[in-house]
Amino acid sequence: MTDCPMCCRWDENSDLQIIELQHSYVTLNRDQYFPGYTLLFTKCHATELFHLDQDVRSALMEEVTTVAQALYAVYAPDKMNYELLGNMVPHIHWHIVPRFRSEPLWPRPIWAEPHDELCLPVDEYRQRIERIRRELA
Amino acid sequence: MTDCPMCCRWDENSDLQIIELQHSYVTLNRDQYFPGYTLLFTKCHATELFHLDQDVRSALMEEVTTVAQALYAVYAPDKMNYELLGNMVPHIHWHIVPRFRSEPLWPRPIWAEPHDELCLPVDEYRQRIERIRRELA
Repeated sequence: MTDCPMCCRWDENSDLQIIELQHSYVTLNRDQYFPGYTLLFTKCHATELFHLDQDVRSALMEEVTTVAQALYAVYAPDKMNYELLGNMVPHIHWHIVPRFRSEPLWPRPIWAEPHDELCLPVDEYRQRIERIRRELA
Repeated sequence: MTDCPMCCRWDENSDLQIIELQHSYVTLNRDQYFPGYTLLFTKCHATELFHLDQDVRSALMEEVTTVAQALYAVYAPDKMNYELLGNMVPHIHWHIVPRFRSEPLWPRPIWAEPHDELCLPVDEYRQRIERIRRELA
């Protein structure tokens, strides 16, 4: 879809790209207030899990799981959070977020309070991405 | 686990029970501020998707999908939200929530602002549960 911002996000976020998987693209979230916050979005334009074929859905959920496990290995969080919302951008995109007891917001959801975006120097994005990629290799 | 509130939730919430599936229990959320807000939690005590065997995980995600599709059919929302958090109660439980443009909180996540719990008369819970069950049948 030409008017879907998620459909062209992979090309436009080259500095945040982690990996291309069979059914999804995986990028670091630009706002790293929550360290390791990662987005995984489908290659096809779909908006609900039940719009996907079962084999694609299962494979997609294996990709979500693999990425979550890699983030868990890199960041050693207290819990992983997995969210598929899409109220603003309906194209399926998973928010996969390592969560820590040490956070000011813990144990509430990441959306419970607004916060200032934490953008990183390009080198720090690169380092985070490389650590995640090594874990996914 | 004896100290996990989710491990005994099915027995203790008999007025909210929707259905028992192969790998999960499904209940209406007591707070119905978001109409149709449903919880789906695993029968086994597990805390992360990557702790489950692949076949169980895939089957579980089919159950999440089936319930989401039923809620979509009953409520005709603008979007379904699917969230697996567990920062307070780590036992895997999915928040499956129909979302509407007409809500005061739209398009923000359900956690973006606090709200007063909306508890229903027992009959209204029963009616909601029956509609969802019929769709699942």
